[in-house]
Amino acid sequence: MSPERFKRINEMLNLRQPDLTVVMENVHKSHNVSAVIRTADAVGVHKMHAVWESSKRKMSAGLALGSQNWVGVSHYDQVADAIKAVRQQGMQVVVTNLSEQAIDFRDVDYTQPTAILMGQEKHGVTEEALALADHQVMIPMVGMAQSLNVSVAAAVMLYEAQRQRQAAGRYGHNQLDIAERQRILFEGGHP
Amino acid sequence: MSPERFKRINEMLNLRQPDLTVVMENVHKSHNVSAVIRTADAVGVHKMHAVWESSKRKMSAGLALGSQNWVGVSHYDQVADAIKAVRQQGMQVVVTNLSEQAIDFRDVDYTQPTAILMGQEKHGVTEEALALADHQVMIPMVGMAQSLNVSVAAAVMLYEAQRQRQAAGRYGHNQLDIAERQRILFEGGHP
Ligand SMILES: C[S@@+](CC[C@H](N)C(=O)[O-])C[C@H]1O[C@@H](n2cnc3c(N)ncnc32)[C@H](O)[C@@H]1O
Ligand SMILES: C[S@@+](CC[C@H](N)C(=O)[O-])C[C@H]1O[C@@H](n2cnc3c(N)ncnc32)[C@H](O)[C@@H]1O
Repeated sequence: MSPERFKRINEMLNLRQPDLTVVMENVHKSHNVSAVIRTADAVGVHKMHAVWESSKRKMSAGLALGSQNWVGVSHYDQVADAIKAVRQQGMQVVVTNLSEQAIDFRDVDYTQPTAILMGQEKHGVTEEALALADHQVMIPMVGMAQSLNVSVAAAVMLYEAQRQRQAAGRYGHNQLDIAERQRILFEGGHP
Repeated sequence: MSPERFKRINEMLNLRQPDLTVVMENVHKSHNVSAVIRTADAVGVHKMHAVWESSKRKMSAGLALGSQNWVGVSHYDQVADAIKAVRQQGMQVVVTNLSEQAIDFRDVDYTQPTAILMGQEKHGVTEEALALADHQVMIPMVGMAQSLNVSVAAAVMLYEAQRQRQAAGRYGHNQLDIAERQRILFEGGHP
């Protein structure tokens, strides 16, 4: 690795937000999956979670994840297992959903450890995910379209988190643990 | 038209922001084009602008625009003509570009009449567009990816405009002119 590249990766690792993540629940179009991971990387997400409704989906859309190995991805068959994993890291679970019960997405404090859950292109999030969440949020829409594209909605959510975290000085110092930093520096990404 | 639908369209028209628009410069993947227009509709954009580098592109990607006729689209061969059109409406031109010269996208006042210019998937915006713009802005990125997906970047820009406009009370009253309202109500969309 060149000294420039080593420096670049080091700087990137200094800005990682290990307590901010995304759970994709059955998102299955590969261009959406790759846009979500690219945006997650851009705001400093270090590790993501993907729930797959079938192994066929995982094989096809999951490919989009391989192209970008700076953000790690954990895979699950059940949304409950993905939520359990983020809860074990002390995260609040914020589910995006177009409903009467949802609050404005800007009314949540994303400087807290947070997992943002995004739903499937056609059917949205499952009842199970809703039941397990702390907050149900919605991005306001004033037009005729019923919903936003899922990668667009993920980006609007993530950049609200970035805005709050930047204001709170959360991009100022390393938050990754030393062992994880070393591993990434030596292996050049997630496995 | 049912009374419910008439009411729904009327409410939508009350929230339109005729002084906010998007110019897509050679954006050519149809899933990106359709995601941009869907987000534009969601924040109240009433009319958009698309510049096409070739008529072949316009034929293929332009199809994505037809599916959604609540946001009007004007087509151009030259970016200068699109910029001239928005200037005639008194708009500032904000070009998104990944460069040293770009300022943070949140440092622009989007409550002013504004056209946001998005560039092509591979090559970004042209020198010509940069030369004609008032502001060159960038969405901060702290990861390893070089850029955001274009529809994602458009959404982050548009929801910053929405945030500023909401705070300024700009979604509180009708801003469309009466003739345009009537036309849309009777014709059920843009032609
Ligand atoms: C195309 S939408 C699903 C639409 C589905 N018919 C529904 O009602 O849930 C796919 C995903 O994008 C996200 N999404 C789309 N629009 C959103 C909005 N306005 N606010 C929050 N999330 C949104 C949610 O994660 C949703 O599950
Ligand atoms: C994939 S990018 C183009 C990348 C191209 N290599 C370049 O350097 O311009 C396509 C378009 O998305 C928008 N975009 C992508 N990332 C952006 C960012 N971080 N800030 C502002 N606009 C961005 C711009 O409109 C850009 O022209």
